[in-house]
Amino acid sequence: MPGRPLEELLALARGARVYDLGFDLHAGIPHFPTHPPFVFGLTKRHGEIVIDLPDGRLASSSADAISTGTHVGTHLDGLGHFSCNGMLFGGAAASAQSYETGLETHGLETVAPILRRGVLLDVAGLEGAPILPKDFSIGPQHLEAACRRQKVEIRAGDVVLLRTGWARYWPDPATYVMGGRGSAPTGPGPEIDGAGWLSRQRIFATGSDTLAYEKVPSAMQVHVHLLVESGIHIIEVLNLEKLAEDGVSEFLFVALPLKIRGATGSPIRPIALAV
Amino acid sequence: MPGRPLEELLALARGARVYDLGFDLHAGIPHFPTHPPFVFGLTKRHGEIVIDLPDGRLASSSADAISTGTHVGTHLDGLGHFSCNGMLFGGAAASAQSYETGLETHGLETVAPILRRGVLLDVAGLEGAPILPKDFSIGPQHLEAACRRQKVEIRAGDVVLLRTGWARYWPDPATYVMGGRGSAPTGPGPEIDGAGWLSRQRIFATGSDTLAYEKVPSAMQVHVHLLVESGIHIIEVLNLEKLAEDGVSEFLFVALPLKIRGATGSPIRPIALAV
Amino acid sequence: MPGRPLEELLALARGARVYDLGFDLHAGIPHFPTHPPFVFGLTKRHGEIVIDLPDGRLASSSADAISTGTHVGTHLDGLGHFSCNGMLFGGAAASAQSYETGLETHGLETVAPILRRGVLLDVAGLEGAPILPKDFSIGPQHLEAACRRQKVEIRAGDVVLLRTGWARYWPDPATYVMGGRGSAPTGPGPEIDGAGWLSRQRIFATGSDTLAYEKVPSAMQVHVHLLVESGIHIIEVLNLEKLAEDGVSEFLFVALPLKIRGATGSPIRPIALAV
Amino acid sequence: MPGRPLEELLALARGARVYDLGFDLHAGIPHFPTHPPFVFGLTKRHGEIVIDLPDGRLASSSADAISTGTHVGTHLDGLGHFSCNGMLFGGAAASAQSYETGLETHGLETVAPILRRGVLLDVAGLEGAPILPKDFSIGPQHLEAACRRQKVEIRAGDVVLLRTGWARYWPDPATYVMGGRGSAPTGPGPEIDGAGWLSRQRIFATGSDTLAYEKVPSAMQVHVHLLVESGIHIIEVLNLEKLAEDGVSEFLFVALPLKIRGATGSPIRPIALAV
Repeated sequence: MPGRPLEELLALARGARVYDLGFDLHAGIPHFPTHPPFVFGLTKRHGEIVIDLPDGRLASSSADAISTGTHVGTHLDGLGHFSCNGMLFGGAAASAQSYETGLETHGLETVAPILRRGVLLDVAGLEGAPILPKDFSIGPQHLEAACRRQKVEIRAGDVVLLRTGWARYWPDPATYVMGGRGSAPTGPGPEIDGAGWLSRQRIFATGSDTLAYEKVPSAMQVHVHLLVESGIHIIEVLNLEKLAEDGVSEFLFVALPLKIRGATGSPIRPIALAV
Repeated sequence: MPGRPLEELLALARGARVYDLGFDLHAGIPHFPTHPPFVFGLTKRHGEIVIDLPDGRLASSSADAISTGTHVGTHLDGLGHFSCNGMLFGGAAASAQSYETGLETHGLETVAPILRRGVLLDVAGLEGAPILPKDFSIGPQHLEAACRRQKVEIRAGDVVLLRTGWARYWPDPATYVMGGRGSAPTGPGPEIDGAGWLSRQRIFATGSDTLAYEKVPSAMQVHVHLLVESGIHIIEVLNLEKLAEDGVSEFLFVALPLKIRGATGSPIRPIALAV
Repeated sequence: MPGRPLEELLALARGARVYDLGFDLHAGIPHFPTHPPFVFGLTKRHGEIVIDLPDGRLASSSADAISTGTHVGTHLDGLGHFSCNGMLFGGAAASAQSYETGLETHGLETVAPILRRGVLLDVAGLEGAPILPKDFSIGPQHLEAACRRQKVEIRAGDVVLLRTGWARYWPDPATYVMGGRGSAPTGPGPEIDGAGWLSRQRIFATGSDTLAYEKVPSAMQVHVHLLVESGIHIIEVLNLEKLAEDGVSEFLFVALPLKIRGATGSPIRPIALAV
Repeated sequence: MPGRPLEELLALARGARVYDLGFDLHAGIPHFPTHPPFVFGLTKRHGEIVIDLPDGRLASSSADAISTGTHVGTHLDGLGHFSCNGMLFGGAAASAQSYETGLETHGLETVAPILRRGVLLDVAGLEGAPILPKDFSIGPQHLEAACRRQKVEIRAGDVVLLRTGWARYWPDPATYVMGGRGSAPTGPGPEIDGAGWLSRQRIFATGSDTLAYEKVPSAMQVHVHLLVESGIHIIEVLNLEKLAEDGVSEFLFVALPLKIRGATGSPIRPIALAV
């Protein structure tokens, strides 16, 4: 019967619990110090310009402007965000880039809509901690133990999300970014052994609820390994609290990065569909 | 069997044809003259800052900044974008708004992820024209005829997309925005009778491939009717060419607006999933 | 005696009354609807990042980001802001311009620091009105009468400022931009006859306290005449109230436009030195 | 005789050599990593919108948008840029600040136009080096020796500019910002002893041709000493090459910071008038 699979898809989508994994965007949200902050302002306020409608009523419109770094708030790292020895993933020259138009290859406009199996590995839950300490290194042993504990397996092409609990620090920028007092971004995450375990699963992307994804301070080896060596996207600043609270380990992960030509990243508002 | 519906959902998503309904974002894209343009620039170029990796290799990163109006490129109009006689949809005061923090009600952070049945009504196709003329008014008769011709019905809660063919003018801003020479935005779309027909179907949102959605120049009555009177979102600057080319009339429409607090609109990259 | 003229210059500068002709920049200031608004936000708040000083005290810094159109607030129009029949002042092709890098000729980086004789013509004062009405056309007769009344003459190379009194509307954007209710910029200023009188004096620049300088609505002939045909800069959104109040007609006018490469305009904060 | 001092001032200004101490602003200029870069884009290109003039000619306009950190390019540090133990200069609470509206005290709108005696101390010239090495500390002995060598004295209220020669690195961001390869801003300048010598002269402001003014890396003690303890403004990213080449040691220094409400800094385009 024609239309049957669409009706099924619509029914599944309608019946799914939708988890919103993005944070609100507004002035003052935490951001990596080297990425420009999110800035907002009206372009026009209601009542500034008033239009007479034919029926005598008065209409008005309001609109806004934003400026932001492309790695601010919940966002996706494009593969061109890092280079190693002058090369991007696949061997393209990192120098093929201009200040005005960005990257010639791996720009965000080349990233397809993401609809993939998602897996949450709740490392904080595994450790029995509401929030992992700032120097916690997520290694293969934690990833494997989390899979066992949650009875979930990783498949090629998946999006694997690691929960550290740092989303709870979001309202306090100094703690979210630096783990407290200090001047260098600091927080838990995988180091090279954890990242290597993930890349061996041939996943599509991995993300977490921290600002830097990898354990920082670092020489950013995990970014190099995932983006440059493995072609695996990184997603940062996810809100994973509700998923974990509800014990959801598997879901359809959906993210639709803006096709910013030549860009190294894009704000996203990802969701998890659990059925 | 546990997990069965998720496997079905994943299989349906994997098997679906994904239509990308958003345009690339870059300097010079068409924009309504009163909305700030899309502006892009690097914050850091590969090679500017070089980090020594422990193994002797040299890492570098690059990143970008953007600034843009929230109604530029493919985007969603929040319900607070228009007011009438000083009131927003539902009766909230339009004056409850500040230049720095935006709307107190109906801000974009209140818009849930959109996963709904989508319907394309190909009005250009109905008229046998590659592109509708700039003064074409899409009335109830066209909407009904398009439904009949495409053998599709509208249901409450749908997202209804109207194709005028103007996406083909996208590479030429003067034509896309003003239909050629001039200084006022001009283009085809529904007037109040067409909009009234749509709102009577109790849809969730309607969009088109033009800049203004409604036929312009106008007093913006259609925006007032849909956003303020009916609580129906408007989506503008969609690329509907491929959907029409493939004769796709029904699909799962997915859009994930950024949760910009207090904002009247958000850039989106919507997709249609056809199965 | 060496250094003597510098001591004189310093003494004159020190003894001068300095009139500040610019307005504050902040969210919500009036702007021409087609120019992006002034938007401000912190990049970092005091206390977010704290540094230990060697003596045990705690230091912190704060910083900001802005985005704005280059024709917003008190600003200077570069000669490349308008074109006529495809040509800029002097005959350069207006098409020699890109979205990313701006104009190839007449970019703001080519505008020298401005230190010139300034003359205020108080047209509102001449008319005995605190504020000129929105449809007031400033003609040669007003300019000549103002010169006579104020006992001042125009010289080649001068900067001539016209006072309409509209600076008093500044706190109310709808009135400042549109003269009240409406949707098109509206306000007093010279039409082509007044502008022709000014250009015949071979002045360097002319400005006023309105948003558009010329009487609007218009086809912008005055901008074309001054910028494109005459090579005379236009300065808009000046605060001339204090100068007029003190009856200052002649002064050293100083403005230091930002050298924004390829730009058509720049925010400035001009001053008048009266001695 | 009325008007006499103005004619003298005009004659002095006209006869002066004007040194432009600011750099061009464009995509890709060096910037402190934690300050958002300068980003530029057109809002409208010539020919996009065409207006019919009454005489049959066709007019068009073009305009631009920028976004930038307020401490990018040649700029002035407001006194509120740094705090110490939670206090700004004069004892105001650093916490009296919001992400949307900035500082309650010491915002840039409070900085008067700057027209003051300026002194260049050419420390690079003193050392017989075209460019000082990146770890050079400018101490009291260098400042005193430069005064003696240039036969110039410092007076209360002056603006004292220190030349290191780093302006020559401006075209190469990695060298200008970090002195070559690395990830932390690095360069020559005063440490606390040099800054203390300057503050004891009760000057109004001091600047240099580097990004950070003080010798970096540092705990930013010099910023704290000058801005917070002494109420002395800092000016960064000056182009002092031509002044030094011409052997100009004394001049009228003019800078007109934008009155950005609540801001901690402003781009400026300062000049030196030598007579």
